[in-house]
Amino acid sequence: MRPLILITNDDGFAAKGLRTLDEIAMQFGDVVVMAPERNASGTSHSITSARPLRVRTIKESNGLNVYACDGTPVDCVKLASEYFCPRPPALVLSGINHGSNASINVLYSGTMGAVIEATALGFPAIGFSLLNHNPEADFSGAIPSVTQIIATALDKGLPPDVSLNVNIPRLPADQIKGLRVCHEARAKWLDSFEKRLDPQGFPYWWLTGKFQCNNPPETSDQWALEHGYVSIVPIQPDFTHYSAIPALTNTFGHD
Amino acid sequence: MRPLILITNDDGFAAKGLRTLDEIAMQFGDVVVMAPERNASGTSHSITSARPLRVRTIKESNGLNVYACDGTPVDCVKLASEYFCPRPPALVLSGINHGSNASINVLYSGTMGAVIEATALGFPAIGFSLLNHNPEADFSGAIPSVTQIIATALDKGLPPDVSLNVNIPRLPADQIKGLRVCHEARAKWLDSFEKRLDPQGFPYWWLTGKFQCNNPPETSDQWALEHGYVSIVPIQPDFTHYSAIPALTNTFGHD
Repeated sequence: MRPLILITNDDGFAAKGLRTLDEIAMQFGDVVVMAPERNASGTSHSITSARPLRVRTIKESNGLNVYACDGTPVDCVKLASEYFCPRPPALVLSGINHGSNASINVLYSGTMGAVIEATALGFPAIGFSLLNHNPEADFSGAIPSVTQIIATALDKGLPPDVSLNVNIPRLPADQIKGLRVCHEARAKWLDSFEKRLDPQGFPYWWLTGKFQCNNPPETSDQWALEHGYVSIVPIQPDFTHYSAIPALTNTFGHD
Repeated sequence: MRPLILITNDDGFAAKGLRTLDEIAMQFGDVVVMAPERNASGTSHSITSARPLRVRTIKESNGLNVYACDGTPVDCVKLASEYFCPRPPALVLSGINHGSNASINVLYSGTMGAVIEATALGFPAIGFSLLNHNPEADFSGAIPSVTQIIATALDKGLPPDVSLNVNIPRLPADQIKGLRVCHEARAKWLDSFEKRLDPQGFPYWWLTGKFQCNNPPETSDQWALEHGYVSIVPIQPDFTHYSAIPALTNTFGHD
């Protein structure tokens, strides 16, 4: 039986990046797509518990079932893996996101929220992002790398409790230098809210921000991307800062 | 000058747990509260970028300024630290959450999303949660531990890039055995969506789930809480699984 591949994203079920990904994935197995009805960028690891979820069937044919859900990317993974996948997924994919999820962006990313959730549920999972925010972005340069990474993951598996955050530079395929396994670069969003007044004179604030990443080391995703490589960062679902435990045990005592 | 303490939560500005926390914090410094207008449980590290934010002033007097914002807990930290704090916060606090954020719950938690964001912005930060979901929960048992942890954090500081996830058992203060610095217990939510039909006969799904954590080790937060201790887990904002890098470099190659 062909492996089952579950796909979601945070740009919405109709996004070009998702269509690119489901076309690639269909070479490897049967595909179930469950993705948000609308753009859910920046929803991180949100879940919907105060209201129920609705699902709309977009298509069910030829090994490709597509559903749109009015929840978050994490909701999509939870609901699809339990109710809409005919067998447990061999691989969960998210993306291809329109825009970078490298470095600190993984914190906010709905694309990566879905991936981390899949890992927590016990499924191997990979998030893909192209460094191009445009809804009409050209994904052709990403196709060979994405295909290679999916093939390798299905063939060799992933370590337990590890998902992959893959970012792809905005380059034609023949200018991409290869794959690099990296760590997240340290970076900051320098936020700067823009205060405006509405027609009644009342204030509101728009989130804006500037991504700042100074001299990322060669071992980091940001360096890889700036030098024409696809970055692959292993991500863990346990946020404990293990090496801080001894010092904090000193600080707070242990009874 | 008294230290400035910024407080948020995910249960909403009017929650009892937040009022408990701001009363404790006022013993140590001036307090700015910026919290969601409504319950924002399960919003994790979400940000609001597709629409602007509104802020409502609830109170500005006697060293306690309280604002309600129609965004997420992360939005609250970003906007308050830039626009509503008269000076940079010496400490950012989130909570006291009504319900556990121990173990894997940190993934979904808006309380902890705010805390991780504060760390990413460079502020020391602590999230507090009481193991009682009730909106009218009795927080009196938590007060001595929360007070002690805030005092220690202000006095000794926290390591850079480390925030604290503090969970407090549902016990009277004199039955709490002390503080324990721990790691997250490995656990799972066994999700089980409940499918229902609306009056028109169309389906919808409610997220339900059962928390499963088998035999948590003595070093874990779940063990501590089950044995009457307050758990303190250091949290990092970098999700890289560093120890997986060598094996994955083997798998995917390095050009």
